[in-house]
Amino acid sequence: MLAVHLENGNVAFKRHAMPKRKSGYALIRTLAAGICNTDLELRRGYYGFTGTPGHEFVGEVVEADTTALIGKRVVGEINLACGACQYCARGLGRHCLHRTVLGIVKHPGAFADYLTLPEQNLHIIPVGISIDEAVFVEPLAAACEILDQVKIARGVRVAVLGDGKLGILIAQALTAHGAEVAHYGRHKSKLALGRAAETMLADGKLPAMAFDTVVEATGSPDALRQAVAMTKPRGTLVMKSTVHGLVSIDTAPIIVHEITLVGSRCGRFEPALRLLKSGKVDVSAMIHDTFPLKDAPRAFHRAAERGVLKVLLKPD
Amino acid sequence: MLAVHLENGNVAFKRHAMPKRKSGYALIRTLAAGICNTDLELRRGYYGFTGTPGHEFVGEVVEADTTALIGKRVVGEINLACGACQYCARGLGRHCLHRTVLGIVKHPGAFADYLTLPEQNLHIIPVGISIDEAVFVEPLAAACEILDQVKIARGVRVAVLGDGKLGILIAQALTAHGAEVAHYGRHKSKLALGRAAETMLADGKLPAMAFDTVVEATGSPDALRQAVAMTKPRGTLVMKSTVHGLVSIDTAPIIVHEITLVGSRCGRFEPALRLLKSGKVDVSAMIHDTFPLKDAPRAFHRAAERGVLKVLLKPD
Repeated sequence: MLAVHLENGNVAFKRHAMPKRKSGYALIRTLAAGICNTDLELRRGYYGFTGTPGHEFVGEVVEADTTALIGKRVVGEINLACGACQYCARGLGRHCLHRTVLGIVKHPGAFADYLTLPEQNLHIIPVGISIDEAVFVEPLAAACEILDQVKIARGVRVAVLGDGKLGILIAQALTAHGAEVAHYGRHKSKLALGRAAETMLADGKLPAMAFDTVVEATGSPDALRQAVAMTKPRGTLVMKSTVHGLVSIDTAPIIVHEITLVGSRCGRFEPALRLLKSGKVDVSAMIHDTFPLKDAPRAFHRAAERGVLKVLLKPD
Repeated sequence: MLAVHLENGNVAFKRHAMPKRKSGYALIRTLAAGICNTDLELRRGYYGFTGTPGHEFVGEVVEADTTALIGKRVVGEINLACGACQYCARGLGRHCLHRTVLGIVKHPGAFADYLTLPEQNLHIIPVGISIDEAVFVEPLAAACEILDQVKIARGVRVAVLGDGKLGILIAQALTAHGAEVAHYGRHKSKLALGRAAETMLADGKLPAMAFDTVVEATGSPDALRQAVAMTKPRGTLVMKSTVHGLVSIDTAPIIVHEITLVGSRCGRFEPALRLLKSGKVDVSAMIHDTFPLKDAPRAFHRAAERGVLKVLLKPD
C-alpha cells in the first residue's frame, strides 16, 4: 500500500505491506484524512518524527474482531491507551502514561491507504454526516474538550482568540453550546466562519479584564500574555495553543487577579459527532482543497500557505 | 504620631497628625506589625510606592462607630473595597476594582503608631492567640486561600515548593487540613518549621509528574517551570510566587498534560484564626527578631538578611 513518509523535512512515500492488525484491533481503509498544523510541525522535525503522519481521518473497517464493525464508516480516537495505568483506570486513556498516538507517537498514521486502530477507539459515523465533515471530528472534539473542563453557562460572554482552524471550531462549538462568543482574529473571512455573536479584528488594543472566560487558540507565543490581560479577576483562561519553546508571561496579574489557566488538548468524540449531526457546527466552508494521497507533497505545501484552512487527502 | 516613610529606597520616618477616621472606619493603635517580602519590595520601589507600608498587624481599637469594638484587639483584612462593584456584589471585595490596600495601594499602612480601617475589615482576636501569633493571620489567610480555591482531599499527597515564610505557612496549613505534604526547600532548618510529612532538599533532580497538586511558593522565576514538570497529567498547580517581570515557561506540558494553574493571593481571615486558635499551626518559631518601631531601618535590614524569617515591629 501507499503511505506518506516524513523524514528530514521531506514529504515522501513508501510502499508498505498492508499493516497487520493485532487482536482487538481493526484494519481500516482510509477514505479521507485532514492535514493538521501538527502534521506541518511534524514535517519540520518537531518531536524528532519520522514515519507516516495523519491523525484526522475517516475510514471503512475492512477487518475486525467485532464483525458488526466490518464495512462501517468510522472515525477514531488517536490515543492508543495501555488500559492498565492509573489514568486508564480513571477513564483518561488520553493521558495514558504508555500511550502511542496515531500518526504522532509510535503508531503509523492515516496518510496511507490503510491503518490500524484498537476497536475501542472507533466511532461509527452516524447517518447525516458526510465523509468530508467527519474528518473534522478529531479537531472538533479538541474544541469540545473545553466544555468538559470548564463550566460555561449559556448566555455568558466568552472571548476566543485566534481564527485558525482550531479557533474557528472553538468559536462554533461554544456558540452552539449557547455562549455569547466574542471572536478575535486577524482575517475577516476566517472570523466569518466561526459563527460567533461578535467578531473583532485583533489589530488594535484588546479590552483589559473584560471576560470571565478566555480561550487562547492563536498559536502565537505572544497571545498568552494578551489573553491573561483580557481575563477578569477570578476568571478562567483556556490554553489551546501548543507553542514550541519557552513563552514569556507576566505571572503577577495571574496571581493578583487569581486567574485560573487550564491546559486543554484532545477531547471525547461523542460531543463532536453530536454537534456535526445536529448541523449546529458547519465545517464545509473550512475545506480549502482536496488532493489525492499520491499528491501529498503538494497538499502539504498548500496546507502551509497563508490563509489556507483544511486540506484533505484522499487515497485513490 | 510616628510613621515609617518609604521613599527612593530609604526607610525613614515622618511625624504625622493622628489619622482621621471616616464614618464606618475604626481608629486602631498598632500593637505589633510584621515585615513581609512585599514590604521589602515596596522599599525597592516596586509599584512606585512612597508612603507608610505595613499590612500584617495587630492593634487595639481606639475609636469606632460600633462601640463594642472599642478596646478590642483586632487584625484587619487589607483590601478596602468599594462595596458597589461587580466583585463586591459577589462577596469578592479582595478583587474590588476600586480597592485600596493597607500599606500597599493608597492607604497608609501599619508601620505607624495608629492606622484606620473600615470596621467591616476587622476581626476580633479570639482568646488564646497571642499578639505575636496574630501578626501571622494575614499571611496565614493567604496560605488558607489555596483550600478555598482548590479541592484537596485529606490524605492526598501535595508538593509545596519553597521554604520561605509563605511556603512554611502553606505547608503547615495544608498539613493541618490533612494533606500529606511533601515540602521542598533549600534549608533544613526552615523546612523543619513546615510540619510536613516529608521534607526534601531541592538541590537535585525533582520528581517528574509526581503530584496531583503542587504549590509553587519559592519566589523564584525558575520554579514555575519545575513545578509544571512535577505536576501529574490533569493535576493542579497553585501559583503563589509573585515574581516581578516576565517568567519563561514551556506551555507544551501544560497543554499536553491538561494541567490547571491557579493564581492565588489573599484569603479570608476566618480559617487562619481558627487554625491559630486550634494550635494546629505554630508560627512562634518563625519570629526571628522584634524591633521597636523607631528602629524600623534596622528591622528592614534584618528582615532582608538571608535565612531570616519574620521580623516584627512594635511601637513603644
